[in-house]
Amino acid sequence: MKPVNAAVIGLGNVGSGTLEILAKNREQIERKLGFPLKVTAVCSRSVASKTLPDGLGDPFRTTSWHEAVARPDVDIVVELIGGTGVAREVIDAALNAGKSVITANKELMAAAGVELWQKAEANNAALAMEASVAGGIPIHDVLREGVAGDRLQTFYGILNGTSNYILTEIEKHGTDFEVVLAEAQRLGYAEADPSADVDGYDARSKLALLTALAFGERVPTDTIYTEGIRRISPVDFDYAHRLDHTIRLICSARRAANGLLLSVRPSLIPRSTILASVQGAYNAVWMRGEFGQDTFYYGRGAGPHPTGVAVVSDLMRVARDLRGGNPLRVSPFSFRELREHQAMPITAHKAPYFLRFRVEDQPRIIAQLASALADQQISIEAVFQLPSDNWRNLPFVITVEPTTEQSVRQALASMRSMSFLKEAPLALPMEKGL
Amino acid sequence: MKPVNAAVIGLGNVGSGTLEILAKNREQIERKLGFPLKVTAVCSRSVASKTLPDGLGDPFRTTSWHEAVARPDVDIVVELIGGTGVAREVIDAALNAGKSVITANKELMAAAGVELWQKAEANNAALAMEASVAGGIPIHDVLREGVAGDRLQTFYGILNGTSNYILTEIEKHGTDFEVVLAEAQRLGYAEADPSADVDGYDARSKLALLTALAFGERVPTDTIYTEGIRRISPVDFDYAHRLDHTIRLICSARRAANGLLLSVRPSLIPRSTILASVQGAYNAVWMRGEFGQDTFYYGRGAGPHPTGVAVVSDLMRVARDLRGGNPLRVSPFSFRELREHQAMPITAHKAPYFLRFRVEDQPRIIAQLASALADQQISIEAVFQLPSDNWRNLPFVITVEPTTEQSVRQALASMRSMSFLKEAPLALPMEKGL
Repeated sequence: MKPVNAAVIGLGNVGSGTLEILAKNREQIERKLGFPLKVTAVCSRSVASKTLPDGLGDPFRTTSWHEAVARPDVDIVVELIGGTGVAREVIDAALNAGKSVITANKELMAAAGVELWQKAEANNAALAMEASVAGGIPIHDVLREGVAGDRLQTFYGILNGTSNYILTEIEKHGTDFEVVLAEAQRLGYAEADPSADVDGYDARSKLALLTALAFGERVPTDTIYTEGIRRISPVDFDYAHRLDHTIRLICSARRAANGLLLSVRPSLIPRSTILASVQGAYNAVWMRGEFGQDTFYYGRGAGPHPTGVAVVSDLMRVARDLRGGNPLRVSPFSFRELREHQAMPITAHKAPYFLRFRVEDQPRIIAQLASALADQQISIEAVFQLPSDNWRNLPFVITVEPTTEQSVRQALASMRSMSFLKEAPLALPMEKGL
Repeated sequence: MKPVNAAVIGLGNVGSGTLEILAKNREQIERKLGFPLKVTAVCSRSVASKTLPDGLGDPFRTTSWHEAVARPDVDIVVELIGGTGVAREVIDAALNAGKSVITANKELMAAAGVELWQKAEANNAALAMEASVAGGIPIHDVLREGVAGDRLQTFYGILNGTSNYILTEIEKHGTDFEVVLAEAQRLGYAEADPSADVDGYDARSKLALLTALAFGERVPTDTIYTEGIRRISPVDFDYAHRLDHTIRLICSARRAANGLLLSVRPSLIPRSTILASVQGAYNAVWMRGEFGQDTFYYGRGAGPHPTGVAVVSDLMRVARDLRGGNPLRVSPFSFRELREHQAMPITAHKAPYFLRFRVEDQPRIIAQLASALADQQISIEAVFQLPSDNWRNLPFVITVEPTTEQSVRQALASMRSMSFLKEAPLALPMEKGL
């Protein structure tokens, strides 16, 4: 049977992983599709020096993406360059030529995905992006098709493997953030500039994309409240455990009365929940639907092969839809059109909070902090102090009953003048909805 | 835009849940599809007394499935009757009339799914069965499309919610099987005749279906080694915990050298694994692919609404494929054609085993058991005996190093003559591959 043909642009880790899967798994892929899926062109700056896997056939090799995209024997263009510059040009050119596009590019899809989908529709071409978020977990597919009939209420994701690795190392070994980060950089788990991972920006792009699929809203990434994990220390885990909780960088989206409440921030979650069992560089999504109730999905966050599976599965889907003459069968955003984002301000979020202080010990500390909290009508639930002999930098924790982020912020602001505080208090919401 | 129209046959729990979702979630479903999904006919023996949900419109009501299937305004027939009698007639009639079919019927699909898919192909009609296994988890969709590009190696499922509820109750409260079962029956979690659940037959049908999607083989259910949970007692959990394991009814499928090794049986799994965290009436699937590595999926096993989400999501997919003129886009079995099952006999399974004995205490027991094991070249790893003062019915456990099921069976057979044994030893494999 006539094959559906693809060009792979970008032969880095994910590109190489994708080619390897297409070659090694060729027979099974054809048994599922009923027709062959063929790579007819590959493009990379260093294409001359690349060894292609056996079983891939003999694709056209070029250093020019223009040339690859323009070839008449290319039906689908797989963009694996990354970034928002050349990658955007490649995708625009492919869609303008009526060719379908598969991408692993989360930044570009979070920033310009809606425009690209409009262009795809105008040119009767498919657009797919499973590999852009949580490589090893088919979460786009699940939201787009698997639970399409449900109406989601709450979404919690662990979407950045590097942060989760760092947090769980701090938790397991009681090592400080900086030490774990340096070790992660040495092992290649974290970038030389770790900001995108540890400050939450990577997770934020992913949350923006999944919010579109889950709730049908177009979320500008910079409207999402985002807080990284730099301030989380071993002592925070000690106290969290004392409360039968752990700490994870949680990407959350939930329906509230007047819109969606989104945030990326370190949060306490009960240790007995399935989300708390996510260790190391894994990703996971827990969600609750109005009808399907709670479901949970877990897998590798990244890596050439797990992400390659996402690319190849997208290729198979798009190839099926092209073969059936229906490239626009399903929107990459699940909804045909996204609505403008109805954002609830993070200050409206109501939760119990975990407040961790570091103080130089002296009399009347609790009294003063309690008074600042009481001024905002915040009720203290408990005060915890684990044994320590460092009275010059003494950590302790106050947990408070459900209150708004707004009240917590005001209470914390009013504490600024308290000279016994060694640093600004750390406030983490305690997630009870899991 | 013109709707795609469905008839719902069978208005029991799942049928009613499906109609409710279609009514309440109508607007969102249309925002995803780009066209309306309409119920134009409903059929049930008691259709006259059924109150249909608001927002469903005013479908034709009938007690005759023939009449519902034959209506020209019905594109998709949703079979929610269950069983293999009338349900089969309904599906045959619908496919013969060129109408697409959605079913939640695991017995029928496990027994006759391949024939039904051939009939669907011959009549250019879609056939879908997401709701047949693990209602709340879109596991068919994940295997068929989400990770279609991967090549699965190992599959572990907890696929019977009732058994998992009973096991986790025994584990939590130390209550005997019979007591928990009676309570589950009182609460409606278990049937009056609990055999399908507690003897593993329900799980076996589900494993047969998912094996087709995961590995492309057509598995006759009666070839799967199946053992239920009736013999699991609180003391088994005490010993399992001592070994940092727990016990679950595990449906497993794994590629071995000469075929697939399938079984449904209570097994020890390490407590630190994510599969061990599955409590109560939940279902879960853990699997490892050659490329995507390990992924995990978790949700409600049953219930009108979780299963209804599966039905409605299937309806949306099939409606898209019909609208695109491509009802045969994807096989319900993931593979276009299934191969004959290459079964590895369960006796070839190699694992460490947990052997629990109940004995009337007397000298030389361990020596005799050890000798019986040694005769089969089985190496003892450890002997455990928790405190007990019942010397007439004393439980204790021997764990053995990896050996074949065949050797274990022979060793157990040779113990039959040992009069100090109060009952046949219980042998559970210890799953290390998770």
